[in-house]
Amino acid sequence: MTVCLIHERTFARVKERVLPEAGEVEFALMHDDGRVLSYKTGEVIDAPDPNIAFGNADMWFGDQAGYFFKLVLGASRLDWFQSAAAGVDIPALQKVVEKAGVYTTNHTQAEAMAEWAIWQALDWMKKGSQHRQNQKETEWKRLHQREIMGSNWLIVGYGSIGKAVARRVKALGGNVTGVRRSLGTDEHADRIVSPDDMFAELPKADVVLLCLPLTSVTENIANADFFAAMREGETLFMNLGRGGLVDEAALIAEMDRGRPAHAALDVTATEPLPEASPLWHHPHISITPHDSSMTHGTVLRADDTFVENFKRFFAGEPLKHVFS
Amino acid sequence: MTVCLIHERTFARVKERVLPEAGEVEFALMHDDGRVLSYKTGEVIDAPDPNIAFGNADMWFGDQAGYFFKLVLGASRLDWFQSAAAGVDIPALQKVVEKAGVYTTNHTQAEAMAEWAIWQALDWMKKGSQHRQNQKETEWKRLHQREIMGSNWLIVGYGSIGKAVARRVKALGGNVTGVRRSLGTDEHADRIVSPDDMFAELPKADVVLLCLPLTSVTENIANADFFAAMREGETLFMNLGRGGLVDEAALIAEMDRGRPAHAALDVTATEPLPEASPLWHHPHISITPHDSSMTHGTVLRADDTFVENFKRFFAGEPLKHVFS
Repeated sequence: MTVCLIHERTFARVKERVLPEAGEVEFALMHDDGRVLSYKTGEVIDAPDPNIAFGNADMWFGDQAGYFFKLVLGASRLDWFQSAAAGVDIPALQKVVEKAGVYTTNHTQAEAMAEWAIWQALDWMKKGSQHRQNQKETEWKRLHQREIMGSNWLIVGYGSIGKAVARRVKALGGNVTGVRRSLGTDEHADRIVSPDDMFAELPKADVVLLCLPLTSVTENIANADFFAAMREGETLFMNLGRGGLVDEAALIAEMDRGRPAHAALDVTATEPLPEASPLWHHPHISITPHDSSMTHGTVLRADDTFVENFKRFFAGEPLKHVFS
Repeated sequence: MTVCLIHERTFARVKERVLPEAGEVEFALMHDDGRVLSYKTGEVIDAPDPNIAFGNADMWFGDQAGYFFKLVLGASRLDWFQSAAAGVDIPALQKVVEKAGVYTTNHTQAEAMAEWAIWQALDWMKKGSQHRQNQKETEWKRLHQREIMGSNWLIVGYGSIGKAVARRVKALGGNVTGVRRSLGTDEHADRIVSPDDMFAELPKADVVLLCLPLTSVTENIANADFFAAMREGETLFMNLGRGGLVDEAALIAEMDRGRPAHAALDVTATEPLPEASPLWHHPHISITPHDSSMTHGTVLRADDTFVENFKRFFAGEPLKHVFS
């Protein structure tokens, strides 16, 4: 019999959709306290041995996450693992990739991450920081603001996240240049350019956004030369990729020269960001703790990915988003 | 000869476009120090007597604004006044309406104002306040956030501003119900309902936005009953219309009961907002000083409206956005 390891909250949401497809599957429901109960009998399962496992946010962000990975990696035969993440650059996930017969990724975090980019850009363009300071000081002072409408965005790394941002920027009246290796066109970008042309594009951008994976090629891609190529004045730099893409010392040094004027970082080279990092208290750097994708919508869309692949798995069809 | 009174900075931007249409027009260029110079001769004009006047932001937000209105209202024959504003509920403008042969309004502020609404909604949904507090305290703490995608917006007053917001909300994956007197459909709203149905819609909304003009009917429309009809929990109330639409005491009282959870106000009943107002220091109220439209884009789009009407004026064609 196939054993499917899943968080009990995840299961409660997908139950109606997976039970009709499941046949002889034993659902092993992990609770926040680490107990694993059988859906069928309601009894504790002493030594769960999953063949299928789904690690959605319910699983990731609880105390039982370590035990979940222990069970997954100790399984006698792990046929399929559905991740809620798009990348596999976390050591625990890399081990799962090696272990699993089929490992499928999930790309539905892009929507929430794209909203983060629009939020950060608007908060900078609308002078959120100055407005809030004025409110604190009961000062009624009109401020000249910028617009996304007509602004020029350079999105470095034009995959699912870059596209989700581009779609929104275009809808809001901005202009998008995407940087990726495979050229051609995309419906949400005004232009696609190759990485070789990135430096020529940097001075034209009001907003530069990194959405790259971290590889030996992309590590520290945003270095002193990169920032020096940005236009002086009202420019914004954002990172939604990985902290290792940015030379943080160079960022701070170049910001003193006004390029960029502001930075918004959802990821940092070391996470959690060490208390001693100068990024924390820089007046023109906004830090969020790698949580741009942490929305209920992301959780529900990852459920959808699992349900779709679950149906395919039991119908003997190829799964979506297979990592190979 | 026709005399056109215009700010010198405005004229510098539109010169290339209006000069070919102008014929015998004398451009009277007002400077920030109040001097009015002839474009043709470069000499000071001692007693400017405008037949045409354009009051863009350059004119409004300088020390010479009072002198501008004095000249406009003292003109021996004011044929046409182009406003940069959509409304005429400011006393100075009402006098100009009575004075001018033709008074034309401008509706291009809607784009910037709509960006304000998206900014405020995202800052609340993404827990901007909590994120900033955590950054200040060097605390790396992931926060569960909301999304515009899938959120339900009730836009009360569905004119040019309401539509500009609706277009953005739909593009970002939200759902829009517009409230207006003239029913029918609109491409950017999922539904249009009548004011009589507003109370039935309030409990369904995550975000309630006022974009109404202030009239005897709409005054204090957002009163205790209105807020009590909103859903408890994670709801946002915003006002982009006029301060007089909101009973501010009722807003604060009902927020203590959790409806709405947060409020963002670009306008207040008294402006500037008095220092003693409890709105300033409420932890869940965001105040901006009636400056949501104050972008360079708004200025440029108002220029476009003037240029278009200028061409029509001298071609003897009907002007756009005539107020009557």
